[in-house]
Amino acid sequence: MVQRKWFVNTSSDIRQTLAELPEQDPRNFNGFLLDLAERPERIANVTVESLAELVCGNYAVIPVFNVRSDAGQLYTYEYVSWRYGSMSGVKGLILLENHERITHFIVLKGEKFATGKVEDDSVGGYIDLNVDGVTNLSQRIEKEIQQELGLPELVLKGDTILLGEMATDPGMTNNRPGLFIAILDVSLARQLESAARDPDERELRGEVCVYPIGRLQEVVRQSQDSFFLACVAKGWARGIFDGIFR
Amino acid sequence: MVQRKWFVNTSSDIRQTLAELPEQDPRNFNGFLLDLAERPERIANVTVESLAELVCGNYAVIPVFNVRSDAGQLYTYEYVSWRYGSMSGVKGLILLENHERITHFIVLKGEKFATGKVEDDSVGGYIDLNVDGVTNLSQRIEKEIQQELGLPELVLKGDTILLGEMATDPGMTNNRPGLFIAILDVSLARQLESAARDPDERELRGEVCVYPIGRLQEVVRQSQDSFFLACVAKGWARGIFDGIFR
Repeated sequence: MVQRKWFVNTSSDIRQTLAELPEQDPRNFNGFLLDLAERPERIANVTVESLAELVCGNYAVIPVFNVRSDAGQLYTYEYVSWRYGSMSGVKGLILLENHERITHFIVLKGEKFATGKVEDDSVGGYIDLNVDGVTNLSQRIEKEIQQELGLPELVLKGDTILLGEMATDPGMTNNRPGLFIAILDVSLARQLESAARDPDERELRGEVCVYPIGRLQEVVRQSQDSFFLACVAKGWARGIFDGIFR
Repeated sequence: MVQRKWFVNTSSDIRQTLAELPEQDPRNFNGFLLDLAERPERIANVTVESLAELVCGNYAVIPVFNVRSDAGQLYTYEYVSWRYGSMSGVKGLILLENHERITHFIVLKGEKFATGKVEDDSVGGYIDLNVDGVTNLSQRIEKEIQQELGLPELVLKGDTILLGEMATDPGMTNNRPGLFIAILDVSLARQLESAARDPDERELRGEVCVYPIGRLQEVVRQSQDSFFLACVAKGWARGIFDGIFR
């Protein structure tokens, strides 16, 4: 980062703020700093001149840059990052299967602090590698499914289908969680509906909803959950729902 | 807001910061303040005790709250808001039609400041009512389509299909733009491909890509754009692609 022109042009106060960001768990900003160092200095028709401001919450951070357009205009551009950086976590769709036929899908519901409302939600969360004995993406996905569905152990039907990353809101943030579809055996359905969701002390309460797959289009029409909707689109494009819907 | 318990418990410094947020265009934070005043003081199993910190960029803002869980734990929760508040804008999918048959769809591509990368993008943007003579949502959508596709005038086939709102990333932000599908006549295709995108000085360069509808599933498999993916899922659930795909 120290070789970046924008960094050299940044005031010593703000460079100091960058230098003082926590490096140690559980509050490290290392992912954010890695992304920041890798950002290009030219983006489309603007040149990034310096970091004008850096404002931080405990989890989120807003870097505000001075930029210059090719037409010579000076203004600021900013974005929001998690302190984890852009690849912050995973979110996915859980399907249930009976003898290789998809029979159900799962939606979580819970109040979200950001919106202050009950939201449809998808299974997943921060990636938190090196926590809970998790060292790679597939393990993290399996741990999230197990925790959020409240299952004592997890047996997936086949491999988790990795659907690539999703830019949640690239006008606002660099956040880019991974998407997945995972398939469980339908015999778990009863256990799921009675399970307490997520034992994590710091997560808000929520519930697990199991729907017959025939209601997928109805639930999609009502859902406001970007992760769920994106996973359904990806699943449809891969033919996962062929034979269920026209 | 002044009657909220959390507001009463908030330090006078931070109350002062709230009071000093710009109220006048073009930099007003009124949408953010309206949302803030309407937030519940109980969210799931936590009580919001006070605003611990308020850090602001020029467009984005992070309110950090002290909260208390029912189990008696004290910690902070935070979220990110645009200064416009949660209903910040609209994003949608544009389809082209030839004699009532869908023939093409449109994807934008452009570099995004937040990610520093070329991203798939959807038509739309901030809602900015009372700008460009726009006073309601449908007018805003039409103005965005016209601007971003570089069309001198806009003739939609039928009404814009409003798909409701989408929570882009409710673990991070209250942002909740509206989604839509709009249909244009295929005769515009050539004009679209040669058009310069968006005359807005402050938007980054981008391009308009027109694909035959038969390539929709292929493009969905590769896309990382939450808005595009959500609109496709909603369109599929409404039967808009019936007869084109199994």
